[in-house]
Amino acid sequence: MLILLSSLASADEGMWLPEQLPGMSEQLTVMGLEVPAEQLADTSSAPLGAIISLGEYCSASFLSAEGLVGTNHHCVSGLLQYNSDAENNRAIDGYVASDRASELSGGPTARMYVVDGIEDVTEVVNKKVRRWTKDAQRYELVEQAKKELIAECEQQPNHRCLVSSYYGGQQYRLISRLEIKDVRIVYAPADSVGNYGDEIDNWMWPRHSGDFSLVRAYVAPDGSSAEYSEDNVPYSPPHHLEIAAEGIDDGDFVMVAGYPGSTYRYRTARSLQFAADVSYPFGVELAEEILAILRAESDKSEDAAARLRAPIGWVGNGLKYRQGNLDAFTGTDVVADKQAGWDELVAWVEADPIDTKIYGPVLDELDAMQAETESRYLQEVTLGYATWLATDLSNAHRIYRWTLERQKPDLERDRGYQDRDRDRVAARFAQQEQTIWRPADRELLGLMLGRLEALPADQHIAALDAFVADLGGIDGTLDALYADTALVDSAGWTALMDASPSELQTSDNPWIQLAVALEDGFLAENRALKDVQAGAGLRLNPLYMEALLQSQESVYPDANNSLRVTVGHVKGYSPADAIHYAPNTTLSGMVAKAGEWPYNAPENLLEAAAGDRTKSGWYDADLGDVPVNFLSTLDSTGGNSGSATLNAQGQMVGFLFDGNYEAMSADWVFDDALTRSIHVDIRYALWVLENDGAGHILDEMSIVAGTER
Amino acid sequence: MLILLSSLASADEGMWLPEQLPGMSEQLTVMGLEVPAEQLADTSSAPLGAIISLGEYCSASFLSAEGLVGTNHHCVSGLLQYNSDAENNRAIDGYVASDRASELSGGPTARMYVVDGIEDVTEVVNKKVRRWTKDAQRYELVEQAKKELIAECEQQPNHRCLVSSYYGGQQYRLISRLEIKDVRIVYAPADSVGNYGDEIDNWMWPRHSGDFSLVRAYVAPDGSSAEYSEDNVPYSPPHHLEIAAEGIDDGDFVMVAGYPGSTYRYRTARSLQFAADVSYPFGVELAEEILAILRAESDKSEDAAARLRAPIGWVGNGLKYRQGNLDAFTGTDVVADKQAGWDELVAWVEADPIDTKIYGPVLDELDAMQAETESRYLQEVTLGYATWLATDLSNAHRIYRWTLERQKPDLERDRGYQDRDRDRVAARFAQQEQTIWRPADRELLGLMLGRLEALPADQHIAALDAFVADLGGIDGTLDALYADTALVDSAGWTALMDASPSELQTSDNPWIQLAVALEDGFLAENRALKDVQAGAGLRLNPLYMEALLQSQESVYPDANNSLRVTVGHVKGYSPADAIHYAPNTTLSGMVAKAGEWPYNAPENLLEAAAGDRTKSGWYDADLGDVPVNFLSTLDSTGGNSGSATLNAQGQMVGFLFDGNYEAMSADWVFDDALTRSIHVDIRYALWVLENDGAGHILDEMSIVAGTER
Repeated sequence: MLILLSSLASADEGMWLPEQLPGMSEQLTVMGLEVPAEQLADTSSAPLGAIISLGEYCSASFLSAEGLVGTNHHCVSGLLQYNSDAENNRAIDGYVASDRASELSGGPTARMYVVDGIEDVTEVVNKKVRRWTKDAQRYELVEQAKKELIAECEQQPNHRCLVSSYYGGQQYRLISRLEIKDVRIVYAPADSVGNYGDEIDNWMWPRHSGDFSLVRAYVAPDGSSAEYSEDNVPYSPPHHLEIAAEGIDDGDFVMVAGYPGSTYRYRTARSLQFAADVSYPFGVELAEEILAILRAESDKSEDAAARLRAPIGWVGNGLKYRQGNLDAFTGTDVVADKQAGWDELVAWVEADPIDTKIYGPVLDELDAMQAETESRYLQEVTLGYATWLATDLSNAHRIYRWTLERQKPDLERDRGYQDRDRDRVAARFAQQEQTIWRPADRELLGLMLGRLEALPADQHIAALDAFVADLGGIDGTLDALYADTALVDSAGWTALMDASPSELQTSDNPWIQLAVALEDGFLAENRALKDVQAGAGLRLNPLYMEALLQSQESVYPDANNSLRVTVGHVKGYSPADAIHYAPNTTLSGMVAKAGEWPYNAPENLLEAAAGDRTKSGWYDADLGDVPVNFLSTLDSTGGNSGSATLNAQGQMVGFLFDGNYEAMSADWVFDDALTRSIHVDIRYALWVLENDGAGHILDEMSIVAGTER
Repeated sequence: MLILLSSLASADEGMWLPEQLPGMSEQLTVMGLEVPAEQLADTSSAPLGAIISLGEYCSASFLSAEGLVGTNHHCVSGLLQYNSDAENNRAIDGYVASDRASELSGGPTARMYVVDGIEDVTEVVNKKVRRWTKDAQRYELVEQAKKELIAECEQQPNHRCLVSSYYGGQQYRLISRLEIKDVRIVYAPADSVGNYGDEIDNWMWPRHSGDFSLVRAYVAPDGSSAEYSEDNVPYSPPHHLEIAAEGIDDGDFVMVAGYPGSTYRYRTARSLQFAADVSYPFGVELAEEILAILRAESDKSEDAAARLRAPIGWVGNGLKYRQGNLDAFTGTDVVADKQAGWDELVAWVEADPIDTKIYGPVLDELDAMQAETESRYLQEVTLGYATWLATDLSNAHRIYRWTLERQKPDLERDRGYQDRDRDRVAARFAQQEQTIWRPADRELLGLMLGRLEALPADQHIAALDAFVADLGGIDGTLDALYADTALVDSAGWTALMDASPSELQTSDNPWIQLAVALEDGFLAENRALKDVQAGAGLRLNPLYMEALLQSQESVYPDANNSLRVTVGHVKGYSPADAIHYAPNTTLSGMVAKAGEWPYNAPENLLEAAAGDRTKSGWYDADLGDVPVNFLSTLDSTGGNSGSATLNAQGQMVGFLFDGNYEAMSADWVFDDALTRSIHVDIRYALWVLENDGAGHILDEMSIVAGTER
């Protein structure tokens, strides 16, 4: 393992492993950190001990000794949706539990993960493979090692474990997490607060969002994790965060601890060039077509609109992400800089005969791998959209693979197809009953089939061509597939999980037939190809990272959903010539935007805002107003959503909830001048709670006055 | 006459008459003016002696002793259009005259006006009327007085005079102007410089426009004004401006001298409320419909696109103006402030029995007049659009009125129908041959006829209803009107100017028939009603202004196309919470926007920008770049376009060319925090000239180095 703690190119770049912090102690002190770096690195004490994960998409933190948890509003939308119907639409209206008894169960899929152990398992994983292990086998052996480690870890009751890979497989860590299964809604603001500005303001600054909510962890009376029960009691976390009533000022040191999902900071220049030239433009084009279909369907009925709201959000967000990246690729030097970095690496490798011998072939092979990925890209992505967007096809394919994987011993099955996954898969089938909208599904599948048909001949999928031809073309295929929707209810899908592969291979269900054709005729083989590539990656990437770290002084691993700490400052930025963005927004700005949806701020908050704000405990004299959102230089990405923003003393000052549009390419390259995180100021959260009938919840929080400012 | 020079509510508000400046001397010195106010007020010396008018829409200034004139690019678009054809499209490509001989005639309608006399004629005008003169007669008598003054003034050869009214008729001035008729193009940048950003950037900041051009005034060899002739020589203006090479910095004192068109600063609260509630929303709706038609037609052919480009620009600009006003009415306190001002005036009037007796009835009558205006508004405006947009109807109506007015002695005719107007009217007919696009005209007329038909019964125009019914409805009417376009060529229209009214009344030409029906059945009567109202206004407005000036300390008259000076500073602004706009833009910002139309910056300038800018004589060390545009607090409006921006020494530092979107309501209310003028930095103009093959033109300018900064 090789980590260089030299001067950083960018002061605020870096998603640090907690264990890296002590080595950065001096630098952190200069930046403004006031707690010892050793304390900050200790995941078994505050503040890191209070940081939790909500799964793959969000972070959160304990805010009281009674299991109160703060996160983003958009991180609990599923829980709110579960508690919404025509009469009580909590996803729109929000919810205030007036007491413990009124706290609402978030439903059977709501989860929280409290990390209670991180172990370096690099040696355990690596001893499975040798330098001469074939690539295809290498991937499987590593997967098997991981699954064994997870299975052993999950011997602990109520644990959900994972093995994370760092620096492209240079290191592995086993992360042990207590799984809390009874999560209840304590407070959620109205959608018009938590999602103020909706898609228009998404990724944008200046922002005026109250994107925060409060939930509570419940456990069995004996303290063990348990599914929802009336008898459950609030969980007593080992640590919870203090809240700094004085908030932040421009220039203040801040940090964020959370679970960033994934970044591509060390990808090759060629892969960024492909994103800029092909994959993102193609993604934008496809997303625009998909959105047109979803929006047209959504306009047809309220029922359709309710069901399609979420996918419109996802696709819209993905579109904005790709378009924002493309804008950044055009508007900044990201692509050229990346190429320069690659050229530098090549020059470094070639400057020394031994380096040339070790790393030269690595760079060549990485290039060849990227070329191979590119050659299959359009085919894979288009088919991927088809099997994702056509819910029935997605289910049929998952079931067929389920029956195939079930033939193997549990530990040899692919991830997502082990016994530990069964309940989740069934729960997902059940949940789809509430969300599927087949008229849209059908049109989207038609779109993707048409696009697959239009691909160059060498990228056609013969099995699919034959299937479609048999049914008289795309229209005939769609007619056949959507003829009998009784074939495809949730109970039916779940029952089929116990069928044998041959039962499915001879099924009359056209969805199963299509799934079998695709799996046997293309996907299984394609996956095997990708496994070989993954194995090659496991062999090459550690060497690539080794060369990169020696030549270029980068020091933190790419984000991988594991706990990270990032440090920086409250700071505005200049998005374009003659424009400067201040780092704080205010209640006046929120009120100025108020009007029609998505700016339909609730009356009670507008009335409160119209009162004498100087009297509010959350008034900031420097701003002359109650603060709402703020910007920081913190290095974050998806998965950091809901992360607690902490001040120099490790006290909470906000909720991280977004990045900025101008730096959407930050997943590839961090740009000091432009990359910013966007936070809900904790004082706005407290102001909203006080003025939205939820002031009583403040009583259980540890709000500290801090120094007078 | 009553002018109070007390403390101003707003430091930088005010479009001052030159003669007001000496009285403000102390205040001007505090603000930063460095030349004596008396010198600044003297229109017969520099700098005001160098300021000229290009007619109703633009201002300009002399920049050399050889008649070189600087103004906005958009102010000379007609001259460039006149010199454009398929081969040489100077409107798009720009033009550089390499020497005097290559300077291009701007065509027979190009004009410049050099003011050589301003005389207070209030008494001459007012002695025509008595307090008991009836309103209808009052208007006519005042008009007659003005026409007599103008006719007398125009006894001077080559003069075009006008009588301007100030403070709603409290004062009148006769303005004597030398008319220069040979105007030649010296330099125009490409459209992609002069109009960089087109409609997207129109009214917007940050801006990167090179909206300037250079023309030259030519006169006969004996120095008298003359139409274009090869023998003409450059005009020697009595004064021209010095150019300050050091440009401006944030916070610097600046001023602008020019001819602002019209403002509504003293209109009643009710009239602003009507604009906010009815007239602007209606204008926006109508403009959107008109634009949809124009754009659809424009997409059909290149010929259509070329002809419809100008009207699309006008209608789009009007739409943006009204929408911007509505946005400002919603986003600021303009409407409420205006109402508060009115309430204050009413309270002031009612506080004193004598004031109540004098001014009470005035306010009541103004209110009644506004009510009357409102009752006819939709009908008048819709018909107005019909007679404007349907070119043939516009011409037919102008001709019919021409024949009617010709029956009266010249001085009794309405403005626009006197002998002095004949050549212009004929020239306009000729020019229309290049611009009319009947398919669009037809659709637009249909739109307006449909809208008139849809008005409530009491707002129907009986004569029009009958005309349309006779032809079998709107479609039949359009078919009949557009059946034979040979009826309506320019020569035909011009010939008809010599017909008698009765010849027209019995004409077979359906356009003439429609014009006669509208004029005899509605417009003549409607105009008489409006003349009564105008007469009432002439009686009431001076008293209203008198009350207003006594109660509210406003001190400058509304803009009226006469020469004004406005003073202020270089200053940015905050358009919304957390956003600050710096007052300067730079070459880097121009380059950052460069790409497809409307940001298709020319290659030669992009190449020049890519060079070492620090070596440029126009580099600003504080900005670290060559400046492009800047913002000031100067109070300006349409008509100020092309005005020279002057520094504290009266040297030229830029060209005013726009106002900002957020303060579009500035025509109603000046807002210190938001109202800004936008200028081309003179250093950008000089940089463009140097790098666009026009550096030789700098030799004849008086560029002064100024103090080192």
